[in-house]
Amino acid sequence: MAKDKKLVEQITSMEEDFAQWYTDVVKKAELIDYTSVKGCMVIKPAGYAIWENIQAELDRRFKETGVENVYLPLFIPENLLKKESELVEGFAPEVAWVTQGGLEPLQERLCVRPTSETLFSDFYKNDVHSYRDLPKVYNQWCSVVRWEKTTRPFLRSREFLWQEGHTVHATAEEAQERTEMMLNVYADFCEQFLAIPVVRGRKTDKEKFAGAEATYTIESLMHDGQALQSGTSHNFGDKFARAYEIQFTDKDNTLKYAYQTSWGMTTRMIGAIIMVHGDNSGLVLPPKVAPVQVMVIPIQQKKEGVLECASGINDALKAAGIRAKLDDTDKSPGWKFAEQEMRGVPLRIEIGPKDIENGTAVIVRRDNREKEIVPIDGLAEAARRILDQEQADMFERAKAHRDAHTYDAHSPEEFEQIIGEKSGFVRAMWCGSRECEDAVKEKYGVTSRCIPFVQEDLSDKCVCCGKEAKKLVYWGKAY
Amino acid sequence: MAKDKKLVEQITSMEEDFAQWYTDVVKKAELIDYTSVKGCMVIKPAGYAIWENIQAELDRRFKETGVENVYLPLFIPENLLKKESELVEGFAPEVAWVTQGGLEPLQERLCVRPTSETLFSDFYKNDVHSYRDLPKVYNQWCSVVRWEKTTRPFLRSREFLWQEGHTVHATAEEAQERTEMMLNVYADFCEQFLAIPVVRGRKTDKEKFAGAEATYTIESLMHDGQALQSGTSHNFGDKFARAYEIQFTDKDNTLKYAYQTSWGMTTRMIGAIIMVHGDNSGLVLPPKVAPVQVMVIPIQQKKEGVLECASGINDALKAAGIRAKLDDTDKSPGWKFAEQEMRGVPLRIEIGPKDIENGTAVIVRRDNREKEIVPIDGLAEAARRILDQEQADMFERAKAHRDAHTYDAHSPEEFEQIIGEKSGFVRAMWCGSRECEDAVKEKYGVTSRCIPFVQEDLSDKCVCCGKEAKKLVYWGKAY
Repeated sequence: MAKDKKLVEQITSMEEDFAQWYTDVVKKAELIDYTSVKGCMVIKPAGYAIWENIQAELDRRFKETGVENVYLPLFIPENLLKKESELVEGFAPEVAWVTQGGLEPLQERLCVRPTSETLFSDFYKNDVHSYRDLPKVYNQWCSVVRWEKTTRPFLRSREFLWQEGHTVHATAEEAQERTEMMLNVYADFCEQFLAIPVVRGRKTDKEKFAGAEATYTIESLMHDGQALQSGTSHNFGDKFARAYEIQFTDKDNTLKYAYQTSWGMTTRMIGAIIMVHGDNSGLVLPPKVAPVQVMVIPIQQKKEGVLECASGINDALKAAGIRAKLDDTDKSPGWKFAEQEMRGVPLRIEIGPKDIENGTAVIVRRDNREKEIVPIDGLAEAARRILDQEQADMFERAKAHRDAHTYDAHSPEEFEQIIGEKSGFVRAMWCGSRECEDAVKEKYGVTSRCIPFVQEDLSDKCVCCGKEAKKLVYWGKAY
Repeated sequence: MAKDKKLVEQITSMEEDFAQWYTDVVKKAELIDYTSVKGCMVIKPAGYAIWENIQAELDRRFKETGVENVYLPLFIPENLLKKESELVEGFAPEVAWVTQGGLEPLQERLCVRPTSETLFSDFYKNDVHSYRDLPKVYNQWCSVVRWEKTTRPFLRSREFLWQEGHTVHATAEEAQERTEMMLNVYADFCEQFLAIPVVRGRKTDKEKFAGAEATYTIESLMHDGQALQSGTSHNFGDKFARAYEIQFTDKDNTLKYAYQTSWGMTTRMIGAIIMVHGDNSGLVLPPKVAPVQVMVIPIQQKKEGVLECASGINDALKAAGIRAKLDDTDKSPGWKFAEQEMRGVPLRIEIGPKDIENGTAVIVRRDNREKEIVPIDGLAEAARRILDQEQADMFERAKAHRDAHTYDAHSPEEFEQIIGEKSGFVRAMWCGSRECEDAVKEKYGVTSRCIPFVQEDLSDKCVCCGKEAKKLVYWGKAY
């Protein structure tokens, strides 16, 4: 039994050292491995399968809104990047440059895409001529490179996987509508599929994307009280269109600049799943995103009929559309339990000689370890019911945690006190000046996460300067 | 009507100039666009949707054989690449080098992966310790970069999309089994899904992959009689394991080197679909891979009830699991027909006032333009039947074309004569020497495509040197 617990004992507890706990889970749940390429990781099968499920669900939701997928080049010529000055200033310090192709030095160096606004704009310039060509609602699934100095698996790495949507529209209104629509797609996806509650809002000018007119964001709260920006949607107005000359002939026969948006979600959401739902036994996956939803674990599997029964249960679950797996390896049941817990499999079904005698099996939930004894007939229906309940409970638990760690500060003093004593979101009024935002960051190490869509008046004074304030802001330490 | 034909008239005929015909189809069917990034292309929605269908089907077939997906870094440190000398010699002239990250020059330059044997080997070195860890059957979907001098859409570009499978095994036999298994997955996929017949065989030592012990290939024949290497599967033996130190403790408690394979298929298969099935009206897509399988085109759509009926047909087709689309734009029917033909949509359904009166619709096949009048009730079943027939006929037609353009040469004289007069595969005996292979290439511009698995004795003399020959080889000009 001591040996059986080894997998678990090797994890640091999250109360002791949250960062080390995170690293332990990422490694022990076999989500990633480090590589010889500094700052880049291998996403192993257990990690990539989560990403595949995220992709499939997001892609389905995108396509329901009319999105079409495309693929644009990995490289951006330096001149093309430079056309939009804010963008190049924002990204220049963190791009990787290709300077040699084959045996020859390049005449113009190419950056490895950190994001593809420039390439999409260059493409749309040739693809859009008339109002009949609009809108274009394109997306690509790819990897991007940002030369980060300090990296952490999934949260910040030199290369990561994402999707980037880039759209072009005839009117500013339509662009704004698409920007908000995609933010809502992200928010619903996080809440319904990943069981992660989010705050929807707008970024301040300081925090918005380089070159954007407005950036919208969903912000989630990790178990340690730090915020994670979980998806962003940008409205560029006609700024890129002017820089890259994307013009079209409108219905009134005049030449107009087009309006653009972009929006992205990345593999960092795997980090969010870990940090919102995980516990000291490892990963806890929401059933909808879990590559394996049920692990069937035979007890005393060498006894006659046990493996056969377990295998029958596995087949019945699969036939009911549940992603089930049978662990018939020669490891001990205790070891298998610990492994299933570490990997975050939402349910396990234990089936041994006594259970078979009784015509029942034991279902154990990963999230709260609740056991239920269920007749073998109808096991698939019970598993489906319990998985649905687990998904719902995980969302409610995460929401309760988020709400319990969201504090209202009505004055600068209260703000200071909360920041000093608590970790979580702090809601407080802001006058709207960049100076106050900078001052808050410098003094307390927290940033404005967003100006939430749902506004409230907590007071009439800025939490920093004390002057008149009209905007409620979520503040927090962020990953 | 003249205007309606414009789309079509702008294509060069394939008899006149096959290369220009190809380029025209690729552009007019809106599969790709050129970019400011030399040698790289944009894959537009109509092209990318084909790739998505290829991915989904291949991925499903892979997973049935136990493949798991992973993701490895885009970059390879120069030192890592250099560990396997044949590989680095093979790829060094065509890799792109990153020499600067952010604002600093890199201490060691990184190449953008041209293929990932080195990274997988470096990963497996740490991931494989015991026979219990074997086999690992991993695959990744990604893009790779090869700094080609001359490029053509889909066939040869500086960046392309592909999958690369990389496996590691305890025994040489198991690696050989996996190598052949994946070649057969590719062959079945091409024949059953893309309706492209292939020859399965082994590459000569001259033509095999840098560093491989043996390379297996499937070769297909394009409409112009040129060959296209359509998928390859490599057995590395323990060569990479020795270079990268991938060792494991076997059941007998001794340390052994592992055995590896790799296998890949790329977006060039979209080029193959075009060149095998296309005609002078544009693209012809096999129904199984077609993003849109049926285009419903209303005739006199402003007449009462027409659009409603067309829309009902579209819904009924979709409900039956057919990928249908309704073209209710204000273009003329003739224009819509030309567009549907250009884009290769396998069937169109014409529905106008007279058809509605008769309770029928007209189904027209894209491949042979055969028309069938079908009752509106039961249209979905008819469409399914005709799609299946079209898929089968397209394969048979491609096979008949391939067979009609496969020639047997029994002597050097006959070989020379065929090469001079015909284009297609030439089957001829070979002594096995590199000198003869080089001589054939230099003299006739053809290469050995493969040593087919199905061997035959056409004569007992090498088609080049006249010495004893035991091997039948497929020769041809290749893309």
